[in-house]
Amino acid sequence: MDDLLITSSANPRLKALVRLRRRRARDESGVTLVEGFEELELAVAAGVVPRTVFHCRDLMLDPQRQERLVNDLRARGVETIALSRAAFEKVAYREGPDGFLAVLPALGSTLDALDVPADAFVLVAEGIEKPGNLGSMLRSAESAGVHAVIAVDPVTDWGNPNVIRGSKGAVYAVPVATTTWAELGPWLAARGIRLVATTPDASALHTATDLTGGVAIAVGTEKYGLTDQALAAADERVRIPMAGEINSLNAGVAAAIVLFEAVRQRSL
Amino acid sequence: MDDLLITSSANPRLKALVRLRRRRARDESGVTLVEGFEELELAVAAGVVPRTVFHCRDLMLDPQRQERLVNDLRARGVETIALSRAAFEKVAYREGPDGFLAVLPALGSTLDALDVPADAFVLVAEGIEKPGNLGSMLRSAESAGVHAVIAVDPVTDWGNPNVIRGSKGAVYAVPVATTTWAELGPWLAARGIRLVATTPDASALHTATDLTGGVAIAVGTEKYGLTDQALAAADERVRIPMAGEINSLNAGVAAAIVLFEAVRQRSL
Repeated sequence: MDDLLITSSANPRLKALVRLRRRRARDESGVTLVEGFEELELAVAAGVVPRTVFHCRDLMLDPQRQERLVNDLRARGVETIALSRAAFEKVAYREGPDGFLAVLPALGSTLDALDVPADAFVLVAEGIEKPGNLGSMLRSAESAGVHAVIAVDPVTDWGNPNVIRGSKGAVYAVPVATTTWAELGPWLAARGIRLVATTPDASALHTATDLTGGVAIAVGTEKYGLTDQALAAADERVRIPMAGEINSLNAGVAAAIVLFEAVRQRSL
Repeated sequence: MDDLLITSSANPRLKALVRLRRRRARDESGVTLVEGFEELELAVAAGVVPRTVFHCRDLMLDPQRQERLVNDLRARGVETIALSRAAFEKVAYREGPDGFLAVLPALGSTLDALDVPADAFVLVAEGIEKPGNLGSMLRSAESAGVHAVIAVDPVTDWGNPNVIRGSKGAVYAVPVATTTWAELGPWLAARGIRLVATTPDASALHTATDLTGGVAIAVGTEKYGLTDQALAAADERVRIPMAGEINSLNAGVAAAIVLFEAVRQRSL
């Protein structure tokens, strides 16, 4: 079956698509947007079924290979819509669009819907503002093999296009949830998961602290670190040793260092 | 002594300053540019003597404290030039300028000018293209306490404003040099420094490899990793274990994970 072909950017489907750039419109529709072939392929590989895939052959870098994904999805009942180059460039939000833009079910669940095993390994990110930092953390967390990434009072949403892009699709490959400290405390306690806060003010080094068993590693914003509420909720506090004069690591880098120390300890 | 005050953006000093945004102009003059109070303060703390400091009181966030740095530098014989707000905004290159822009001596030395101790701890970055990635690596390397960061065949230069900014000034706090593999091999060998290449194709984990003693940790670009030449030059190859499906860490994150594993081992 041939795709619907849209060549006019005044088409109401495209107007609705552009509206989805706004977080509120995404929330109301229960969807998220993902642009880029690689990102879409990762989401599909992680089991996501897109609602609609907009594609443009003229912009594809490798149309022979890439149209196979479109055809596979169409065969599975996914709506696919072909756009002219001019129409696609109107709806694309990133520079150098590659001909793929998809509407996907909203990302993220509630805490109670998260299914983590005994001895869970979890990353807790508090108040992260920059979508790029959250994306980078997701990418590191997925590589480290965490069972979930939990955002407490996030300023950005999982469906933010820059989170998806920054995570290289990892946001689809690792279970994510959004919550508050009031909810998270009991959830961790019920599962026997210790909360380990990373803060420059701790006396214990991250390498000298047991990160095996059920453990949730909490990181805060680059500028302010974890809040007092987070530090009060923590079972343990750890710091990364700093040799230099600047005493600041990028928030995503700090998270990765502690996550991979946990990986080391958990594989001994 | 009062500063020279410039209010016209047509002033030849300001035109010359704007020209320094180009790498070639910086190379020819043997200088680099640094914008921002924090960055300038870090450079000065690291012992750098600016050639000229351009400042604008109207843009300073904390003029009382910040003008002290200007006065201290002027007292030490540094040329300081006050600009009107309109003039400063013409020469500033970053969004939200904070009233500080300085011309500093060029960064980076040759290999032979680097002075590293026995048991040197070094980061080698090959072919890094993105200034932000190089900046992030410098920041992590400085926090990890390396003795030097060596760039092999870099695409960006140390004086790139985004390297300085991305490094939060760490580029001034850690000795840096630029070289080629042909020069680096003999330099490492003469000092008994082992070259440890990070590559996903290695069989040994970074955590199972001795990173104490004289060691240079080599990282490549995010997209292509280390070149064959780098891998051939390496004494050992290590990989970071990857649990996920995406199998890719940000280049700066990967460097930080291996650097801080070395810090752990070196402090045992």
